[in-house]
Amino acid sequence: MAALALDTSLYGGLLGDAEFAALLSDAAEIAAMIRAEKALARAQARLGIIPGAAGEALAAALETVVIDPAALRAGLTRDGVAVPQLVAALRGQLPPELRPWLHWGATSQDISDLALVLRLSLVLDAVEARLDALIRRLAGLADTHRATLCLARTRTQAAAPTLFGLRVANWLQPLLRHRARLGEIRPRLLVVQLGGAAGTLAAFGPQAIALMDALADELGLGRAVPWHKARDRIEEFGGLLAMITASLGMIGADLMQLAQSEVAEITFDGAGGSSTLPQKQNPVVAEVLVALARFAAHQVGALHQAAIHPTERDGAAWTLEWLALPPLIQATGAALRQAGEAFGDLRVDTARMRANLDATRGLVLAEAASFALAAAMPRADAAARVREAVAAVVSGAAPHLLDALAAAGDASIDWEALRDGRVGLEPADLLIARVLAEAEAMVGAAP
Amino acid sequence: MAALALDTSLYGGLLGDAEFAALLSDAAEIAAMIRAEKALARAQARLGIIPGAAGEALAAALETVVIDPAALRAGLTRDGVAVPQLVAALRGQLPPELRPWLHWGATSQDISDLALVLRLSLVLDAVEARLDALIRRLAGLADTHRATLCLARTRTQAAAPTLFGLRVANWLQPLLRHRARLGEIRPRLLVVQLGGAAGTLAAFGPQAIALMDALADELGLGRAVPWHKARDRIEEFGGLLAMITASLGMIGADLMQLAQSEVAEITFDGAGGSSTLPQKQNPVVAEVLVALARFAAHQVGALHQAAIHPTERDGAAWTLEWLALPPLIQATGAALRQAGEAFGDLRVDTARMRANLDATRGLVLAEAASFALAAAMPRADAAARVREAVAAVVSGAAPHLLDALAAAGDASIDWEALRDGRVGLEPADLLIARVLAEAEAMVGAAP
Amino acid sequence: MAALALDTSLYGGLLGDAEFAALLSDAAEIAAMIRAEKALARAQARLGIIPGAAGEALAAALETVVIDPAALRAGLTRDGVAVPQLVAALRGQLPPELRPWLHWGATSQDISDLALVLRLSLVLDAVEARLDALIRRLAGLADTHRATLCLARTRTQAAAPTLFGLRVANWLQPLLRHRARLGEIRPRLLVVQLGGAAGTLAAFGPQAIALMDALADELGLGRAVPWHKARDRIEEFGGLLAMITASLGMIGADLMQLAQSEVAEITFDGAGGSSTLPQKQNPVVAEVLVALARFAAHQVGALHQAAIHPTERDGAAWTLEWLALPPLIQATGAALRQAGEAFGDLRVDTARMRANLDATRGLVLAEAASFALAAAMPRADAAARVREAVAAVVSGAAPHLLDALAAAGDASIDWEALRDGRVGLEPADLLIARVLAEAEAMVGAAP
Amino acid sequence: MAALALDTSLYGGLLGDAEFAALLSDAAEIAAMIRAEKALARAQARLGIIPGAAGEALAAALETVVIDPAALRAGLTRDGVAVPQLVAALRGQLPPELRPWLHWGATSQDISDLALVLRLSLVLDAVEARLDALIRRLAGLADTHRATLCLARTRTQAAAPTLFGLRVANWLQPLLRHRARLGEIRPRLLVVQLGGAAGTLAAFGPQAIALMDALADELGLGRAVPWHKARDRIEEFGGLLAMITASLGMIGADLMQLAQSEVAEITFDGAGGSSTLPQKQNPVVAEVLVALARFAAHQVGALHQAAIHPTERDGAAWTLEWLALPPLIQATGAALRQAGEAFGDLRVDTARMRANLDATRGLVLAEAASFALAAAMPRADAAARVREAVAAVVSGAAPHLLDALAAAGDASIDWEALRDGRVGLEPADLLIARVLAEAEAMVGAAP
Repeated sequence: MAALALDTSLYGGLLGDAEFAALLSDAAEIAAMIRAEKALARAQARLGIIPGAAGEALAAALETVVIDPAALRAGLTRDGVAVPQLVAALRGQLPPELRPWLHWGATSQDISDLALVLRLSLVLDAVEARLDALIRRLAGLADTHRATLCLARTRTQAAAPTLFGLRVANWLQPLLRHRARLGEIRPRLLVVQLGGAAGTLAAFGPQAIALMDALADELGLGRAVPWHKARDRIEEFGGLLAMITASLGMIGADLMQLAQSEVAEITFDGAGGSSTLPQKQNPVVAEVLVALARFAAHQVGALHQAAIHPTERDGAAWTLEWLALPPLIQATGAALRQAGEAFGDLRVDTARMRANLDATRGLVLAEAASFALAAAMPRADAAARVREAVAAVVSGAAPHLLDALAAAGDASIDWEALRDGRVGLEPADLLIARVLAEAEAMVGAAP
Repeated sequence: MAALALDTSLYGGLLGDAEFAALLSDAAEIAAMIRAEKALARAQARLGIIPGAAGEALAAALETVVIDPAALRAGLTRDGVAVPQLVAALRGQLPPELRPWLHWGATSQDISDLALVLRLSLVLDAVEARLDALIRRLAGLADTHRATLCLARTRTQAAAPTLFGLRVANWLQPLLRHRARLGEIRPRLLVVQLGGAAGTLAAFGPQAIALMDALADELGLGRAVPWHKARDRIEEFGGLLAMITASLGMIGADLMQLAQSEVAEITFDGAGGSSTLPQKQNPVVAEVLVALARFAAHQVGALHQAAIHPTERDGAAWTLEWLALPPLIQATGAALRQAGEAFGDLRVDTARMRANLDATRGLVLAEAASFALAAAMPRADAAARVREAVAAVVSGAAPHLLDALAAAGDASIDWEALRDGRVGLEPADLLIARVLAEAEAMVGAAP
Repeated sequence: MAALALDTSLYGGLLGDAEFAALLSDAAEIAAMIRAEKALARAQARLGIIPGAAGEALAAALETVVIDPAALRAGLTRDGVAVPQLVAALRGQLPPELRPWLHWGATSQDISDLALVLRLSLVLDAVEARLDALIRRLAGLADTHRATLCLARTRTQAAAPTLFGLRVANWLQPLLRHRARLGEIRPRLLVVQLGGAAGTLAAFGPQAIALMDALADELGLGRAVPWHKARDRIEEFGGLLAMITASLGMIGADLMQLAQSEVAEITFDGAGGSSTLPQKQNPVVAEVLVALARFAAHQVGALHQAAIHPTERDGAAWTLEWLALPPLIQATGAALRQAGEAFGDLRVDTARMRANLDATRGLVLAEAASFALAAAMPRADAAARVREAVAAVVSGAAPHLLDALAAAGDASIDWEALRDGRVGLEPADLLIARVLAEAEAMVGAAP
Repeated sequence: MAALALDTSLYGGLLGDAEFAALLSDAAEIAAMIRAEKALARAQARLGIIPGAAGEALAAALETVVIDPAALRAGLTRDGVAVPQLVAALRGQLPPELRPWLHWGATSQDISDLALVLRLSLVLDAVEARLDALIRRLAGLADTHRATLCLARTRTQAAAPTLFGLRVANWLQPLLRHRARLGEIRPRLLVVQLGGAAGTLAAFGPQAIALMDALADELGLGRAVPWHKARDRIEEFGGLLAMITASLGMIGADLMQLAQSEVAEITFDGAGGSSTLPQKQNPVVAEVLVALARFAAHQVGALHQAAIHPTERDGAAWTLEWLALPPLIQATGAALRQAGEAFGDLRVDTARMRANLDATRGLVLAEAASFALAAAMPRADAAARVREAVAAVVSGAAPHLLDALAAAGDASIDWEALRDGRVGLEPADLLIARVLAEAEAMVGAAP
């Protein structure tokens, strides 16, 4: 798996992530391959496939080897995979008597895929930890704003009053499902890979199946039949990353819209400046979330493509997987980091939310007014009455929808009770509660 | 959700599927929307949100309505969603006293998403049924060929002997995981959608949450908070379809390779003819599996894109979902159907498999020979001895690897025991058994 | 090439296009294949490759044949291409003596690709005509609003005054380049395909090259060497469609933003209604442009994928092309149609544009004020002065930026001259003029 | 534009390219931005927009500035674009009196896009140079093998004899068209970007248009109206890269197929080894070409997506472009480099080509036999006769198609003349000549 340096010096703070970049680094890959070779030797020694002493001796010797990535470059370029040259380089640093027992019976893909899985395990951990932190933070924000009124907008139009806490709960709800998906994927993804040259375990003798299982145990991985050509696990993992990134992109798109000058319901501390316009506060973190999500949405297909993997091993499909996975992982890491930044810097302007509601001059109370009227007259009549009142407000003939309705002779209704927009939002509060309870159950209490 | 007619008269047999096309048809969508409206009325009546008698009366009246899709076209074009015009059309066919209670408090997206979920439930059923049938068929094929020797090929090169049954088990193993994933996705996907205009349930009064849950029960769906803007369920479903299609594409790519003139280990009864070349037998079903998989891999990203859904409802994101989902569903249906056809028509030529093994003149026994020699000498020496023998065969100096090795003085080894290629394949048989046991546990015995 | 029915009865008005759907229909494909066979017969007769009389006789006989797409379905499903069954069906309707000369020496792909190119020629014409109409309409709109002041928005923030005519010119400028690209692609795309079974022209004898060129002439296509496996022309065409659709999506995204309740600078006559919110005016046409563009962006990659076409003909790559091209063509047709609708229904609210400018309380004049001050003091001082004034406005201490600046003692500057926002926009007018002159040169005068 | 390090130490030789990586490096971006600022100062001084002396003084001072990418990182992260911090850093290294005149009136995007275009100019040069070298090499190869007989394969099946030179010409023909496309794109892509904060040139006064044109001239770029939000040029460029990479992937897929053990018509010197199978020769360069092409096919859509760019500047769309472009450029560079390697290492085994033809036992002469017979009998009879002979060969009743046909009593035909497969291939030679003439005209003589 090749690394992606969205962590250049210049762009890394915006679009990269140091922790995820480290997990994808040459050094991490080499270390993971060596760890796989050590575990293989240990498991083989225990089962008598290689001499009993060779296992621990190899494992000990491999503790001290030093491999420079650059030294593997030419071999990798020639072989299309790092393992042959790595094995040669490791053997060069081993005592002669141990050399034969290194990589005994394994194929390059065994080691390469084990190294992949070992690193994906760390990636999963990092994704989970950041997701949990984000869930906690959003749960706290939703709770804080459980009673904050604001404008719901549908299809670009002011629609009706809602609670800001419900909007936040809607950011939260897919993250909770992603958290559950992580749990389902983990045992399916983090499994052993050992098949030997043709995926038949032919070099390992009668203990082959036991070896496969012992290697799994040694590395803390699940048991599995060799999956050299069956790459659905990687697809599934990539798909989850794209889903997480898309959810963060959905949040980012909302944040961009809320930060827009005409809406201005949020700001970010330390928001981006302009080189010429001193009044501007660009919602850079929100933009980045959208950009990374759209980018990730175009990456994931390459992993599905790579799963079209003919024969016992296809070099083109396999190499494609190496190309496709790192950008997706990096984008996810960067998005999770930036989402954390965004909510750290977020300032919510509840007064502006109120003002934006009021600026609709009651038009967003149209649905509530309809239902209030429908208690007193046929629904069609109620709807017609509201349509007339809406028209009066739109044309400027009435200052506010409730005034227009009151003037229309519906004095029996307590129109003033509707004015602040809170009528009917009790269920919205219960929806927030439902989401918060799920978050609580999943990751513990909000701070 | 708009339909895709890969079911044109001309191409439907190759690239479409009648059953899946029917699930995506205008008629199916209208029927599902009406079903959602009926269930809503019933649930509301039961909870007293609308008059108690109106529920059954509406449900009964809606049994007999007839809606021509063409009659909704202009309204849908204007409104960007079918529901407003459908509700108007339905009201036109209802007794006046029932009209107000239809669609009471719901928003278009509630009905549209419910209709989507109700149809996806049927799509899931159909996918599952076809997947099960395919699993059973492949399990049978793997079992039949548990002892059939053939050539494993890695990175385009003849690698080592394997069992054809193991290759089939490798086709099978991702399908088993997809089957498990279907089970996990089902309760997450098939959930109620009811939020009202702004996702707050504001029109439904104190019984709102109870209504939401009652509607779920009425339709046999899971309970959920409104997910108007949280589209991860749809992404996840699309991702699974792309994974299934990619696995079938992997199988198709193998079948293409096995059908290739130079390999010729399989044929298909009734394979495609050429307009000018009478000797040709084109593996059309296999090609179609690959084409559909690569196509699906490019579709799924659009669903991730559509999940970047700002505000309480975004018309662009929502419409994108309608565009993106049907091609993916259709491609999956067609691929599952064609995979069934492929295995129905498959003829396996075990003699040719044997001949292809023999044609390598023992080169694919190189690994087995190395391990045999390594029992008698240091591994490095063994490897060198085999390399020399390989060179002798490649240069034409020796007719067969085992002859070259025997001639090199390793008479102590029973080289003839290696000749048929079966040595070392006992674990491969156990791998097949492991996969078959899983298949058995999942979908029942192979035929 | 398989068709896509976004033209279902229900969704066709929103997401489809009748003209483009007809170009992609089964009937159109069959007619184009027959046209290719006629032209081949004529060219072959003229060159003596088939009997001289057979050419016109075949061409005449093929005028009257009737082919039901459904009758070709089974054959296409078996053969993976329509031509063998079509040729058989045509022969069945020909006098026996003519039958041998039909399809003489051609391969299925020759006829299939010719039929594709003949239809793409009509698609190109339709795209060009609609693009020209849209260019004319936008040129008119830009001209109408050459002096209309409005707010430029960058990174979601109110930035500075601009001219609405310049915004329209920015919608126009990529369309002008697409028009030029269409001209460059046309001769590259609309070329003959004739190679015979293996692309060698082997069945045609010494006149083969002359035949290839004569067939091109007969069909009004450019000359070319056989391109059975060299599919870059199709990629390029698809790329242009995706570019056109993306430009329309860019326009649609702007229109959505301008229609947003908080901005409200445009409306559409007959905009979409809501099933529950009478006050809403959803910008459906704009949303559709964005959705189609994002959809198309995910389709085009499948055409690049299909160009990875191994051997003399690859059934998987070829079939993928059939799957990938129609959705892209349909999306482009629908987007061009809907863009036309959008501008037909567009109402521009110049008073609201003015009001939105004024609502920034002069903050968007910050850059202009800086430059005005910089004429009288060092730039850094000027920038600092403006930053202070901005802060005064943002904090509410000053009602308007120009008031804050005037109060700061810069009385020597004629601040009132800046107030309406028009200062400095002369070059913007010239930019509009430059774009309009280009449009004029390309498609004739604006209405 | 952020860089992509497929040039890690480990993977760079396989999947990266040092020259292209350098063009995308932080250092290259900073240098190009400084170059843009210098040119702006010079052009402004010449037109009197800034003091006459400031232009050259600034340009001279900027020659010696040193900017560490890491020093811009925090600013870029905050601002979402490198320019504000770069301008601040540059000002810090300038004499105080020059500071105000740096970046006078420009917006960050002006400088950022100019730096992009300046680097894309170098990318275009590098692509063109490598494409030309590849064209020359392939032209030489086609010429060398103008008479080399080999098997054409269609839909996985042995089809008919062809010339290896024609296969190479088919690799060549799309490259020639790409070369022409490069020429068309160059003047459209390499144009000036100068618009100021809102794209109106408002800060530049009456000389604004002249400045825009002068800046173009200063940098050797074409003139253009500001295209901040009109990103079709970038889409088009990305599309061409994807097309080039797909064509190389098509070649790679052919090379993989030809290197396959069962075909073995080519080998690569120094081909990849296996860690366990000494007999293997993996066609690594060919696999890489396919992997990069499939990867690139998934990248290009993100650029179309990024062109959906609302308002005068959208941070999400713009950032997406930065993410999407580098992987595409890197993949193209790596593919062009690896294609060069592939053909440097290629060994063509003409004897094996002959043997593969012969191994079909005349079946691939079926079409030629049909046409030979059709000269003596009705075509339908000829076809039937050949079908019978094919069946005889397939069943083993006849050793060779020509023997079967001769035995069937068609002694009047000189069947032996057909046996070597060369009959009818004269036009194929002329097709090669046509392609070579085009290559000659485009890039000069083959070596």
